[in-house]
Amino acid sequence: MTAESSPLTIAQLAELAGVSTATVSKVVNGRSEVSSETRAAVEELIRRHGYRRQRRRSTPTALVELVFHALEGDYPVEITKGVARVARAHELTVAISDLSREHTAPGAWLEGVMRRRPSGVIAVFSGLTETQHELLARREVPLVLLDPADPPRSIPSVSAGNWNGGLTATRHLMELGHRRIAIITGPDSALSSRARLDGYRTALDMAGVPVDPELVGRGDFLIEGGLAAASRLLRLPDRPTAIFATNDGQAIGVYHAARELGLRIPDDLSVVGFDDLPSIRWAIPPLTTIRQPLPEMAAAATSMLLTLAQGDELPQSRVELATELVVRESTAPPASPSP
Amino acid sequence: MTAESSPLTIAQLAELAGVSTATVSKVVNGRSEVSSETRAAVEELIRRHGYRRQRRRSTPTALVELVFHALEGDYPVEITKGVARVARAHELTVAISDLSREHTAPGAWLEGVMRRRPSGVIAVFSGLTETQHELLARREVPLVLLDPADPPRSIPSVSAGNWNGGLTATRHLMELGHRRIAIITGPDSALSSRARLDGYRTALDMAGVPVDPELVGRGDFLIEGGLAAASRLLRLPDRPTAIFATNDGQAIGVYHAARELGLRIPDDLSVVGFDDLPSIRWAIPPLTTIRQPLPEMAAAATSMLLTLAQGDELPQSRVELATELVVRESTAPPASPSP
Repeated sequence: MTAESSPLTIAQLAELAGVSTATVSKVVNGRSEVSSETRAAVEELIRRHGYRRQRRRSTPTALVELVFHALEGDYPVEITKGVARVARAHELTVAISDLSREHTAPGAWLEGVMRRRPSGVIAVFSGLTETQHELLARREVPLVLLDPADPPRSIPSVSAGNWNGGLTATRHLMELGHRRIAIITGPDSALSSRARLDGYRTALDMAGVPVDPELVGRGDFLIEGGLAAASRLLRLPDRPTAIFATNDGQAIGVYHAARELGLRIPDDLSVVGFDDLPSIRWAIPPLTTIRQPLPEMAAAATSMLLTLAQGDELPQSRVELATELVVRESTAPPASPSP
Repeated sequence: MTAESSPLTIAQLAELAGVSTATVSKVVNGRSEVSSETRAAVEELIRRHGYRRQRRRSTPTALVELVFHALEGDYPVEITKGVARVARAHELTVAISDLSREHTAPGAWLEGVMRRRPSGVIAVFSGLTETQHELLARREVPLVLLDPADPPRSIPSVSAGNWNGGLTATRHLMELGHRRIAIITGPDSALSSRARLDGYRTALDMAGVPVDPELVGRGDFLIEGGLAAASRLLRLPDRPTAIFATNDGQAIGVYHAARELGLRIPDDLSVVGFDDLPSIRWAIPPLTTIRQPLPEMAAAATSMLLTLAQGDELPQSRVELATELVVRESTAPPASPSP
């Protein structure tokens, strides 16, 4: 009979190591007030047997922490709606943090979280650093990443079907007859941006249209970035007849670049966004876009968090919700066929 | 020497009435388990001497409840930013409630609030009913109303200078040469809408321009309402050359009504909004509007709440922050002089 197969609790580790449970807890939580010999002994036991977290005995506050990297536009509203829907059904409070001004002092935010002892944390986009991920894990506060920039494998996350969205947006433009199709990406560090770009490339490639590197503009998922990138793209000698803006904000930037140059949408230029934020149907002209179901994604993340907070396993730790093309008035066949 | 001038605490009332403090507390909190004679006696004492709440002995949760009647658009984001700024400085958690789906069960929300024992509640626009106001007051949970529809005199509130905003918007249009200026109001029940309308009327009146009732359109502060009202106004035989939309959402509705009729902004029609939400500078054309400083108003409301939560008196229970004209590209002189 071997014990290696079954991970041990703190109490079992303490007994085996001949130290107190408080000492094992300190090692497990990465605190410094333990001698290096004791630490080594406990860590060796954990290496051999594994360590099994116990269900939390004290009840955490019925609180979901929702962390945004920035409170701007209606993106955070859509997320909050979805979280609030599930939270309400479970009598949970939704607490909002805005980390936009706190990038230099991530410790202060975490101290606040530990004081509040929430049921769990939902971090949106790139809300938290890896260090913060680790500190939450050590303190056994469940964490789910929502629409994450680049989620570590160990942390559960909810995303949209970004690659498929990129493919669908580009195919829609090709079906209208466009061949000179530009793209404005998000930040390079965001997998969502990379996936949308790859979907665009695959759509072109499968149609036998070579990808022109000149037609790949760099953005930052902000209106201003979309405006700057589109201003360059629309001044190319052989300018694109369509732009896939990869988010709704950048699409608005494209609208402004087109306006500055006297180009009409969709007559002179077709534009496709990504997100389908509620306000975008009121753009002039209303934007054709890829709907990413933000409230549903947020609701899924909250349900996952509740499962984790109960000490249960997630059936699936990476959830991806499908995107969908919403055709409005910003796309049309090109005025004259591309060369 | 008369005692009438100084309000009594529960303990003093109990002594005078010859009953327990628990009984006085029941009367004060409107509970039913007190005989009608005792209730009458205590209430008579309160009528004569007044009743002074004691500072709360148990510490409430370091939590601000922020209650929205609807989570839509970037209005709630601007409010949340301002609340979060002050909350962060005081290590307070911001909890968000969305009452949009709970109009039928206001009790459920209140039960949640009482369970959480927040430092106080900020209700935005028309978040709460009068009954809820009273229940919070009885339970000594401080309440501040933010941008309230029609605040009861007894509850502290923070508003914007709505009347002045209406005056300034209309004067701006008159300075450009407009005389046929329409307005689209918000709901009749909102004092903010009434004040903007009165400012509009006064501006016209002071310039000797009679108010034409046909040019007063009814809205609801939503895009759709603005669109419907503008569609009527712009089809009048002697159509207005300018519309004061009284909020940014309705201004977007006016943009769409103008587009349907082939009218260009500002060439054929000038439009002024109200709010200056961040997205509105990206409308095409960028909207001239009255800035209502929502984050600053929210920060002021939070500070007031903290004062109340500490058991202190507010220096001022009605705060009004100034509005400001922001001129962008949706206003210009009328194409041809009005008759």
